[in-house]
Amino acid sequence: MLTREHPQSLYEPIRYTLQGGGKRLRPILLLLAAEAVGGDYRTALPAATAVELLHNFTLIHDDIMDEDDTRRGRPTVHAKWDNAVALLAGDGLVALAYKSLLATKTDRLAEMSRVFTDGIIELCEGQALDREFETRARVSMPEYMEMIAKKTSRLLSMCVQIGAMIGKATDDQIRALAVYGTNLGIAFQIQDDLLDITVDQAVLGKDFGSDIQQKKKTYLLVDALEQADPDSRNALDDYLNKDSIDGAMILQVRQIFGTVGTLDRAQQAIRKYIEEAEASLHVLDRHSKIAYLNQLLELVLKRNA
Amino acid sequence: MLTREHPQSLYEPIRYTLQGGGKRLRPILLLLAAEAVGGDYRTALPAATAVELLHNFTLIHDDIMDEDDTRRGRPTVHAKWDNAVALLAGDGLVALAYKSLLATKTDRLAEMSRVFTDGIIELCEGQALDREFETRARVSMPEYMEMIAKKTSRLLSMCVQIGAMIGKATDDQIRALAVYGTNLGIAFQIQDDLLDITVDQAVLGKDFGSDIQQKKKTYLLVDALEQADPDSRNALDDYLNKDSIDGAMILQVRQIFGTVGTLDRAQQAIRKYIEEAEASLHVLDRHSKIAYLNQLLELVLKRNA
Repeated sequence: MLTREHPQSLYEPIRYTLQGGGKRLRPILLLLAAEAVGGDYRTALPAATAVELLHNFTLIHDDIMDEDDTRRGRPTVHAKWDNAVALLAGDGLVALAYKSLLATKTDRLAEMSRVFTDGIIELCEGQALDREFETRARVSMPEYMEMIAKKTSRLLSMCVQIGAMIGKATDDQIRALAVYGTNLGIAFQIQDDLLDITVDQAVLGKDFGSDIQQKKKTYLLVDALEQADPDSRNALDDYLNKDSIDGAMILQVRQIFGTVGTLDRAQQAIRKYIEEAEASLHVLDRHSKIAYLNQLLELVLKRNA
Repeated sequence: MLTREHPQSLYEPIRYTLQGGGKRLRPILLLLAAEAVGGDYRTALPAATAVELLHNFTLIHDDIMDEDDTRRGRPTVHAKWDNAVALLAGDGLVALAYKSLLATKTDRLAEMSRVFTDGIIELCEGQALDREFETRARVSMPEYMEMIAKKTSRLLSMCVQIGAMIGKATDDQIRALAVYGTNLGIAFQIQDDLLDITVDQAVLGKDFGSDIQQKKKTYLLVDALEQADPDSRNALDDYLNKDSIDGAMILQVRQIFGTVGTLDRAQQAIRKYIEEAEASLHVLDRHSKIAYLNQLLELVLKRNA
């Protein structure tokens, strides 16, 4: 499927994107879920490919919308080619994702395709919310949680649901794994927000403090605005009213996140969601192979990229 | 499904697009194909909705790529909002199209979804070719035919194939209807190329001669470059080398299309493909209800918008 070369302006940027690496978290989750309920990961490989293709579609289109020029340490597709090429490469990846999904040998293809489709719709809703938040002065914590539930978490719970279906899971098992995926996703996103100001560019492949620079309504900013003392809140409002954000300002905002307790609360929230994900695995019956899914939680807790 | 309103920045442009009207050719084709083979059009309604949603996705994304500001007499989505909103609205429409398709009550859902998916992949390939052609000095007629087969024709043959599947068609019936759709699509596209210089803006809802202005490699330009005498070819090359194209130049190019016989050959080609579409219907057995499919061919021949 991905050996096609013609037309070059479609398949070259698609291959470029897929060769960019990445953690491959989503396909791994899908395969582990299939194995957890007694399925064979090999049956789940086409679906695992599908969720990785879908993820890469979102990266290309998000980078156009956010005007990000770097991803995983390389130029983004629209920076290397142009917006039209990137737009079309993303569209192609969605269709290729469905093609791969529909090649799965399973009698639950319709059900799987519906979960996959609902996941994409929620992804789009989450991305729309994220963008709406950019121009708003305040975003409440419940609004933030709705946004990341749709934008990040839904895709991860979709992965484990589809993997579980391919592994012939019971409805109870699918439900438990979906809860696992949802909580893992929330933890993962808060961790992502935190990593923006705790790691350097070389590791993450993007700019230090780029969320602060773009005034993104991250967990950190939403929490800090809600919990800050009057002085710190005024300082944050000054920052939000600035036209351009320099390095000193990024450090100052990070400083505030520390003093008002936001960084601690973010760490606590990550641990809480990871624990809930872990607890949901115990709902699965004792024959389930949950060791790897548990280890994955550890990796998310400790990740630095 | 399309009554959702939140997030507004996603669903408002989607509703705006769907309220823009249009011929609804694709869903009508799908419903007629279902009826032609003895099915009930009502069973095919979700799939008919799906192909119209998919078509509108391509319009929104094509308009971004072509930087077209007007469609059906109204501002395009990216002109009314911005590129990011239009990009996301298009993405949402693809997923909503699949959601509608997957709601069809049929035992051929997997087969239908695969045809739908392959159609989208070819659409993307066709659009990529169309864009590659824009920067090339010459495009051969076989290259042009490959491009419109993928960009226009494939979606129409996909519509009749899916309609036929829902109507429980035999493989022979599906094949015959696919040939009908393919030929109809080619005739439709050449007619479209021709309408660019034969109708006024009020009817088509876009600029007169906009293809010529954008130096699009249409049937007309490809044919004229291949068939012109040396003087006319030189004049066309002068036109292609111009930085900006004014109204006088558009009229001059149209003049050349007339004198070198391109307009006549385009008319003949349209009739030829319409006749082939008609002939393919006779392959269907005598119980098939082909009257409406035949009438549709007449409409395409006579359309002026």
